[in-house]
Amino acid sequence: MPEATATMAAMKWWGWGDDDVSFTHEGKPELAPFIERELGLDVRRPGTPAIAFEDLEITPPVLPAGLRADLEAAAGREHVSTDDHDRVVHARGKSLTDLMRQRRGDLGRLPDVVVRPADEDQVVALMRAALEADAVVIPFGGGSSISGSLEAEPGETRPVISVDMTRMNRVLSVDATSQLARVQAGVFGPELERQLNAQGWTCGHFPDSFTYSTLGGWIATRSSGMQSDRYGDVAELTRGLRVVTTSGLLVVRPVPSTSTGPSVREMVLGSEGRLGIVTEATIHIRRVPAERKILGYLFPAWADGLAAMRDIAAGETEPSVTRVSDSHETAFSFATRTDPTPLDRVKSKALQTFLKRKGWDLEAMCLSFIGYEGSAEHVAGQRKLTERIVKRHGGLCIGTSPGELYDQKKFDTPYIRDFLLDRGAPADVSETSAPWGDLQTVYDNVMAAGHGAFHQVGVPGYLMCHLSHSYHAGACLYFTFALNPPAGRDALEDYGVVKRAIQQAFVDSGATLSHHHAVGTEHAQWLEEDISAPGVAMLRALFEGTDPGANLNPGKIVATGGDREPGETVPRGESSRTNGGTGGPRRSLDAQRASQPRP
Amino acid sequence: MPEATATMAAMKWWGWGDDDVSFTHEGKPELAPFIERELGLDVRRPGTPAIAFEDLEITPPVLPAGLRADLEAAAGREHVSTDDHDRVVHARGKSLTDLMRQRRGDLGRLPDVVVRPADEDQVVALMRAALEADAVVIPFGGGSSISGSLEAEPGETRPVISVDMTRMNRVLSVDATSQLARVQAGVFGPELERQLNAQGWTCGHFPDSFTYSTLGGWIATRSSGMQSDRYGDVAELTRGLRVVTTSGLLVVRPVPSTSTGPSVREMVLGSEGRLGIVTEATIHIRRVPAERKILGYLFPAWADGLAAMRDIAAGETEPSVTRVSDSHETAFSFATRTDPTPLDRVKSKALQTFLKRKGWDLEAMCLSFIGYEGSAEHVAGQRKLTERIVKRHGGLCIGTSPGELYDQKKFDTPYIRDFLLDRGAPADVSETSAPWGDLQTVYDNVMAAGHGAFHQVGVPGYLMCHLSHSYHAGACLYFTFALNPPAGRDALEDYGVVKRAIQQAFVDSGATLSHHHAVGTEHAQWLEEDISAPGVAMLRALFEGTDPGANLNPGKIVATGGDREPGETVPRGESSRTNGGTGGPRRSLDAQRASQPRP
Repeated sequence: MPEATATMAAMKWWGWGDDDVSFTHEGKPELAPFIERELGLDVRRPGTPAIAFEDLEITPPVLPAGLRADLEAAAGREHVSTDDHDRVVHARGKSLTDLMRQRRGDLGRLPDVVVRPADEDQVVALMRAALEADAVVIPFGGGSSISGSLEAEPGETRPVISVDMTRMNRVLSVDATSQLARVQAGVFGPELERQLNAQGWTCGHFPDSFTYSTLGGWIATRSSGMQSDRYGDVAELTRGLRVVTTSGLLVVRPVPSTSTGPSVREMVLGSEGRLGIVTEATIHIRRVPAERKILGYLFPAWADGLAAMRDIAAGETEPSVTRVSDSHETAFSFATRTDPTPLDRVKSKALQTFLKRKGWDLEAMCLSFIGYEGSAEHVAGQRKLTERIVKRHGGLCIGTSPGELYDQKKFDTPYIRDFLLDRGAPADVSETSAPWGDLQTVYDNVMAAGHGAFHQVGVPGYLMCHLSHSYHAGACLYFTFALNPPAGRDALEDYGVVKRAIQQAFVDSGATLSHHHAVGTEHAQWLEEDISAPGVAMLRALFEGTDPGANLNPGKIVATGGDREPGETVPRGESSRTNGGTGGPRRSLDAQRASQPRP
Repeated sequence: MPEATATMAAMKWWGWGDDDVSFTHEGKPELAPFIERELGLDVRRPGTPAIAFEDLEITPPVLPAGLRADLEAAAGREHVSTDDHDRVVHARGKSLTDLMRQRRGDLGRLPDVVVRPADEDQVVALMRAALEADAVVIPFGGGSSISGSLEAEPGETRPVISVDMTRMNRVLSVDATSQLARVQAGVFGPELERQLNAQGWTCGHFPDSFTYSTLGGWIATRSSGMQSDRYGDVAELTRGLRVVTTSGLLVVRPVPSTSTGPSVREMVLGSEGRLGIVTEATIHIRRVPAERKILGYLFPAWADGLAAMRDIAAGETEPSVTRVSDSHETAFSFATRTDPTPLDRVKSKALQTFLKRKGWDLEAMCLSFIGYEGSAEHVAGQRKLTERIVKRHGGLCIGTSPGELYDQKKFDTPYIRDFLLDRGAPADVSETSAPWGDLQTVYDNVMAAGHGAFHQVGVPGYLMCHLSHSYHAGACLYFTFALNPPAGRDALEDYGVVKRAIQQAFVDSGATLSHHHAVGTEHAQWLEEDISAPGVAMLRALFEGTDPGANLNPGKIVATGGDREPGETVPRGESSRTNGGTGGPRRSLDAQRASQPRP
């Protein structure tokens, strides 16, 4: 199999994804008017890019010669980098707070060195070197964390090593009988699927971050993919693990279920580097399905969509995707449509007339996607059972084209953030999960809290939601919000007020602080309210007992010192000046899409 | 809802289940000849029961007056017991080693006091009292542990409190929308189902121990039920938890999935009292299915049965039960048949003739059970899909009556142990799980190890196996064995050689030390070989960090001092003398069965 090809060379240091890809409102005739109406923001005016890389103040690395020599002995000289761009790219993830600070040139505590090991032995050697030198070790996959899991603590005086795992990107073996694959942890989503697809298999894990996230990162954050209804969350599909810890190599056997005390496997999941570096996992794989369909549906109102998804979860059908947007997200989705053909226009008009005649309130209606996978017989049977339930709740199938569009665009959403940030408007997401019976209340509370926060800071804001990831007893609610602070205000501060209001509404409503975005530093302040003080004490005992020197990504999940609140500790840096990109032409998302392997 | 009615009053102190229920070979004409042929044991000769209770040497309790007063203040005077029978019954679980020692009058370190709290506040109060007095706290559900999870450490000098949870036995609320129920942890299986069934719901968790085990015990040991293919292991169906810990009340929210660091929920699961006392859980419930079928099948050989189960797990069908016995267990099953009617005899003869004509080797054939649940439409569809796979592997449906018999007798197996122990023959179980691709090798290795051990100790032995609990990537193998040491030998020592050989073969073959029977003290010696030294270090960090005084069931899972091996540290006590029962008439299993609620 080929050696690593994926590198971070083209990764934006100030935004999402590759330097040469960006989002644009052009070709989406309804989008600019929608944003102007809802946020008072004219996106047709050119934006202000991030500060130029050349203008960044980059503190020199502090790397003792002995440690450098040991790291070079461990991973090879050419894979130990103190290059400025490497250090800046590896300093943080891609949370809104991260990006706003990067754009301003506020870089925080940069790592002193980036090491790129090629195999597990090298990880063992570099861990030994790091512990001997009392250095800090922070594992780095795709760098797509949006919870602050990757940044060294502000006052860290010890050398900080970012361990970039992306050279370890191979599927090591496939066990067709057991439906398991041994995979190195540094593989990116598309590359994992490419290697598995070549043998007729899929992992089926497709988070929003898919293009820029790795298996090890999914494991370290308890990631969930868009088709988790069928394939399971990463916590379900990860069976075996190999982790380099302070006390040697942890090996979790890939058994399907076990009764060996508290689950060590479930301790590594979500551990964000605090227990060690995940080098390899044995994961569930499935045959690439013969048929794969994502259909669009409309429901008269949010309550109908919620009830339908709940009844589907309780029923004798098992779709691969269940998703329904509230009316606000539905309106946004329709506003992002590309230039319709005259035929599209006629169809759309006819649908509206039909719905109005049925008595629908078009402002209240909700867009839904339901996916089916498997043999043609299975897909047909599952669809029939599911659509019985959809119909019972007043839903209506609108065919395959909205689903195909969703399927194509599903990894593009994060690029919109940079487009809005260029124009001074912060946009972010907060997601949670709760039992089915509580979802409407959680939703109502979050909408009230979010709009209350917009009102409090006195800025125009938009807040929308979808339900996705259905389980037997509940589902995930995924909120997206944007605000448009006027010039002269600190956008990060205004953003923080909204973000905190939404997160607080989660935990106050009995929901969880995050369904699949992890804790990091940005969600840490709600941890005790979510898992209770004895729960935090258990995590602290685990981390402190296995890492007494606090060398492994300290401060994440359970704060070492005080908690940091989103937007709170950000120094008031300068505002952005010039383009921070490479200067090359930016490819459109569609061009990039065509070049990516699709599952 | 009614106050607790279930008590341990009728529980055998020397064997499984109620004092007035026992197993007999009578009415099973093939059984005695089968046992005589395979083990050289004539079960028609009367057995030798355990030592009489009156002859036990029971050391008086050590209970400081202050602690007693605090416990009485916590739970009420009448629920704090230092009664001899209470203390003996609560001293241990029901492992083979436990029972053999009890029968000999070797009681070990008895608890000093048994406390029966009525609610969570009382548990909090008694925990506080115990910690203040530096006492040891051991939670006790049904007492059915077969891994040594319930006995105090031999040299324990502090007061030992057994906390009997069975007064806390109510379903507190049912959330029909979320398909969740809040349930007190001390409820026994049948009572849980009775309360849920009354509202049209089922939990669907039916372990072998169902009749004599509690929800809290299932959680503390990571139990798995016979219908786990459909309902999930207890680790899956337990969402919310309330646990009284040394640092207060741990509350795990009943959310369907969450990304809040290492899973605290999955730390409580399997914790065997080392993190605290589980008082309540929020569990998955499902509507009692309209139809429920368990069908019998025959496969030409073990390899065919294994392959069929694997293909079912990988297919588009989801039975509620998948189980196949090897040829040895198949022969044993047929030998336990009750007196057949003349019609049964004709049918059985006809089937044998038919199979021989098809070229089957009747010595090699394997009995299988597959269950289906749901609407009539669903059951029919699932059966059709499943039987396509069964047929592809040469399998044959033999109708509903074997399945019905299995379904009726499924909780009786543990009583057979006492029947054999009365006659000096130890019989026990060891179960594991592994990926599908490894199951045949694990099986072969265990059979070789078991028979090697029989040969080594030079006693006749029988070893048989079934596969059950199928998952995407593997399944459980459940081994049962019996041996017949001649008079004059130490049966417990011979048993230990066999048990250790089988367990060692598990971990040497890459399988786990237990799929659903927990670690306790009896499996602790294989823990490091299973989860690796860093895994043990993680458990140790968790236990020692949250319970620095080692007050919570010390020595379980991770040994405090040296490990104890099954059968090794047992003092050579006197052999059994007279009947240890209450002297009352023993009901037959069938009479008992009729009086139990059925799901």
